[in-house]
Amino acid sequence: MVHKYEIRVRYSDTDQMQRLHHAAYIEYLEVVRIEFLRSSGMSYKSVEESGYLLPVSTLEVSYRRGAHYDDVIGFETILEVISEVRLAFHSKLFVDSTLIATARVELACIDAVHFRPVRLPEHLRDLLSGTAVD
Amino acid sequence: MVHKYEIRVRYSDTDQMQRLHHAAYIEYLEVVRIEFLRSSGMSYKSVEESGYLLPVSTLEVSYRRGAHYDDVIGFETILEVISEVRLAFHSKLFVDSTLIATARVELACIDAVHFRPVRLPEHLRDLLSGTAVD
Amino acid sequence: MVHKYEIRVRYSDTDQMQRLHHAAYIEYLEVVRIEFLRSSGMSYKSVEESGYLLPVSTLEVSYRRGAHYDDVIGFETILEVISEVRLAFHSKLFVDSTLIATARVELACIDAVHFRPVRLPEHLRDLLSGTAVD
Amino acid sequence: MVHKYEIRVRYSDTDQMQRLHHAAYIEYLEVVRIEFLRSSGMSYKSVEESGYLLPVSTLEVSYRRGAHYDDVIGFETILEVISEVRLAFHSKLFVDSTLIATARVELACIDAVHFRPVRLPEHLRDLLSGTAVD
Repeated sequence: MVHKYEIRVRYSDTDQMQRLHHAAYIEYLEVVRIEFLRSSGMSYKSVEESGYLLPVSTLEVSYRRGAHYDDVIGFETILEVISEVRLAFHSKLFVDSTLIATARVELACIDAVHFRPVRLPEHLRDLLSGTAVD
Repeated sequence: MVHKYEIRVRYSDTDQMQRLHHAAYIEYLEVVRIEFLRSSGMSYKSVEESGYLLPVSTLEVSYRRGAHYDDVIGFETILEVISEVRLAFHSKLFVDSTLIATARVELACIDAVHFRPVRLPEHLRDLLSGTAVD
Repeated sequence: MVHKYEIRVRYSDTDQMQRLHHAAYIEYLEVVRIEFLRSSGMSYKSVEESGYLLPVSTLEVSYRRGAHYDDVIGFETILEVISEVRLAFHSKLFVDSTLIATARVELACIDAVHFRPVRLPEHLRDLLSGTAVD
Repeated sequence: MVHKYEIRVRYSDTDQMQRLHHAAYIEYLEVVRIEFLRSSGMSYKSVEESGYLLPVSTLEVSYRRGAHYDDVIGFETILEVISEVRLAFHSKLFVDSTLIATARVELACIDAVHFRPVRLPEHLRDLLSGTAVD
């Protein structure tokens, strides 16, 4: 499944190069992951409330073109289930039909008390196995 | 007592107007308050660890001139103890000797469990009464 | 005219108090002003492209309740035309039906070359006079 | 040459996991690059003023441990001159003596008018060749 989502570039996220600042992409990608989960039937809020956290363990972004204020960035995202503990989201970012960036963000499931790796909760694994690409 | 502190404008905090974005001042003012407390002998971290929070209740900022990337902003701050529950920090912001902004930020002390107003911890009141202006 | 808009609280905008950080409201209010203008038939992007800037001159925010991650904040905003050079946006922020904050943000029109006050462009004044409250 | 720099974790950069948000590392790394250049005798501001920009082309971050509010992060950074157009900064991040993250950030030199790749200005290449690792 390819999840599609759009985010409009905020003025406060531009910098004096008059482009979207490279760190802001990271915040947008987080919004996209959360909406990916929501569209799969899972609120990340409820994941945290049930005692799990999904912090980012690795981040890789390749920037090809800048994005401008007020541009609408289209995100196309697929999910990779790496193990019972790890997930990765792969995104392509477009403005109009131009690829402006690609990203891979890996998350590790940890428990909210001890901050130690744990298996993803079973209902999340079940949900995600239906949406992940093989 | 006037507390003085300097913060250099970060590239990521500029916007496409090629000035420091107005929301970033609010983050800088928070750094300044925390360093004000530290210089008075109090770590805000320890305030939170002892069960108190100091969220912002009101914010007033007047922007006179823009600040540029790499400018060093000088903050001159005084403390007003409004009551046993409320504090306000008054800051003047300078670049070189030009006043670029003024700010007043009011904080309310609440307990970290119920998020209800409580009196500032006594040792904080004692410390601050020595640094506040009448 | 009361302009209504909704923004969902982003994870990256929370802080360790587990509430929306007070500076993030300022960025959300900017999004709201831009969507207010868009709904009135004016893109702020085109305002800048025609040589005008609308930087914030004063900011007043009163915070009553915290907002949580994933909350949807409803903004109700009215416009006040102060003069031919100055505008102010007055917003009320709600989560569910609870008022969580109020804000007044004043903007001054300046020219993009000299950064000096100028009258708002006529088509913007015409548009806004129809949406402003008396 | 290994460049060393310290940045204290800001409250506004924490998230509700009560750790430094993963996107804020990216902003801190930018500060570190700019201070690296300054310590080599080059202000990034003057680079931009002479018509060059150094946007990020790729970003790789590996997060091992979280950082807390008020922690002082120590950055150890070396420079790799990839070509006459490209640079990469490799950083190790420590809190106390614990490695919490590693990062590689690649920059491409472009001209500020056409946003096209150009060779790094000669004086920058000369300066950096003295500080880069072979």
